[in-house]
Amino acid sequence: MRKKIVGVMGPGDKATEVDVQHAYRLGELIAQQGWILLTGGRKSGVMDAVNKGAKSANGLTIGILPTDHQKDISEAVDIAIFTDMGNARNNINVLSSDVIIACGMGAGTVSEVALALKANKQVILLNNDAESKIFFKKLSPENVHVVESVSEAIAIVQKILI
Amino acid sequence: MRKKIVGVMGPGDKATEVDVQHAYRLGELIAQQGWILLTGGRKSGVMDAVNKGAKSANGLTIGILPTDHQKDISEAVDIAIFTDMGNARNNINVLSSDVIIACGMGAGTVSEVALALKANKQVILLNNDAESKIFFKKLSPENVHVVESVSEAIAIVQKILI
Amino acid sequence: MRKKIVGVMGPGDKATEVDVQHAYRLGELIAQQGWILLTGGRKSGVMDAVNKGAKSANGLTIGILPTDHQKDISEAVDIAIFTDMGNARNNINVLSSDVIIACGMGAGTVSEVALALKANKQVILLNNDAESKIFFKKLSPENVHVVESVSEAIAIVQKILI
Amino acid sequence: MRKKIVGVMGPGDKATEVDVQHAYRLGELIAQQGWILLTGGRKSGVMDAVNKGAKSANGLTIGILPTDHQKDISEAVDIAIFTDMGNARNNINVLSSDVIIACGMGAGTVSEVALALKANKQVILLNNDAESKIFFKKLSPENVHVVESVSEAIAIVQKILI
Repeated sequence: MRKKIVGVMGPGDKATEVDVQHAYRLGELIAQQGWILLTGGRKSGVMDAVNKGAKSANGLTIGILPTDHQKDISEAVDIAIFTDMGNARNNINVLSSDVIIACGMGAGTVSEVALALKANKQVILLNNDAESKIFFKKLSPENVHVVESVSEAIAIVQKILI
Repeated sequence: MRKKIVGVMGPGDKATEVDVQHAYRLGELIAQQGWILLTGGRKSGVMDAVNKGAKSANGLTIGILPTDHQKDISEAVDIAIFTDMGNARNNINVLSSDVIIACGMGAGTVSEVALALKANKQVILLNNDAESKIFFKKLSPENVHVVESVSEAIAIVQKILI
Repeated sequence: MRKKIVGVMGPGDKATEVDVQHAYRLGELIAQQGWILLTGGRKSGVMDAVNKGAKSANGLTIGILPTDHQKDISEAVDIAIFTDMGNARNNINVLSSDVIIACGMGAGTVSEVALALKANKQVILLNNDAESKIFFKKLSPENVHVVESVSEAIAIVQKILI
Repeated sequence: MRKKIVGVMGPGDKATEVDVQHAYRLGELIAQQGWILLTGGRKSGVMDAVNKGAKSANGLTIGILPTDHQKDISEAVDIAIFTDMGNARNNINVLSSDVIIACGMGAGTVSEVALALKANKQVILLNNDAESKIFFKKLSPENVHVVESVSEAIAIVQKILI
């Protein structure tokens, strides 16, 4: 049986303080559940924080990098997959995750949520932006889950992964 | 001097009647301006209609296909680029277009608009969905242009391509 | 009916003088036959020379770029497809060509010939390296054609494209 | 410190009996060294055998799949990365490996060795095909290592990874 992979997507440089806090806590809880964490792997914002959270709880972390080199990788990534395909790698991020949590929102995150829905994946939105919730909930009422807390996000992942 | 490329993105099977009418007319006008048309190339919805419109006005049409085979290609595509990379090809669509028109909206189109904005491209939204307009206009106030008609879309493309 | 596309692959910086002369002449003849030329699009070696040859005979030229920016593009490319996926774009080069001519040989060219054979495409080897001929002819006796001159290469393309 | 990743490439359906035996033994030894195994992930030939070998020694195995679905995956893959990009994923295979072992040879393997050399990676050839050895050794005398046994391959990996 392959292990379950939870993808956490979210902004890099433009992540808010709250996004980063959420991300770190998500990482801890994902690791404690025995799930593997998958992110875009960069040393920035949500990606970096969630990887650090997962490693603080001895989780296993995979980073799908947009580049082919060693720069700008979160030090908390255990396994670096080098795609050298820029943001086209966003599709790999979502296809390789059993479920996706969007922690905050930026243009890259929007593309990941959309590609996940296109692939008929379940997506959990954890953030405070009313427009995103309304927009994605209308785009895919069945596959989009809007949550208000990290623990609520984890509870939904548990249900989806059973 | 390389010719200018206008990308038209939009839903396939889920395109509305209005989306398809808009798309055909967009194709005609793009061809009349001497621009090259670029789409996702499939024989469906907006992609098929805009290619047909462009060919009716003797334009040149490029299709960036998600597959590696001859099925499901719009017959109005002159040049088929076979990526065999599914929706990851959406990033190629937008990177290869000098400007992008989103004609209608579906999950694939959302990913293309988001990837275009991530790549700092100008995007014109031509559709009737209030949530999309509000969402994308907030995501990128400077690079998103909301229009109500095909002729308005073309007028903005003209300004951008000068 | 879509136009026929001939892909010409070959080394960039490491192209020999003979490779470059062959490439320019190939471009002229491909354009004269009414075929579209497809290359990796860079301003270097075989890619640049074959595009120049094609434009000298008023052909149409497509470049599948490894990058997402305007640098290092052959000025003789009419249509630039920006993949931003480095050498993974080599697979797109061969999938999008109806037949492939390898003009000279380098590591990138080897990958393109191999990917073309994997996709069951016909490949014409135009070069002077005995090891390449022996190696690829053994790898795929039916799909590899070894030629000694540009005109012989074009004659084989004609047969394949009928 | 990220763990070291050893990529093992080789034919699927066309793998010889010897290729498969080599692959299984390679997997065992890679796992025993504490290295992570990376392959193309399919349930076939060298890919399947090396993953099984690694799991028999409690290794960690990553499969970079060409598809987006659950079919044709080696059951001995722990972490499946779904690229949905066909053979373009071969570039990801080699970019993500610290060193590459080619166990046997087919068109896909040739593309991987070539892309690895293009990316300036060290490649170890473990097989019995004289033409491959001569061809690749000429293509890149410094980065290609020809070996005659599994243990010799592992010894070279050890030197490279120090």
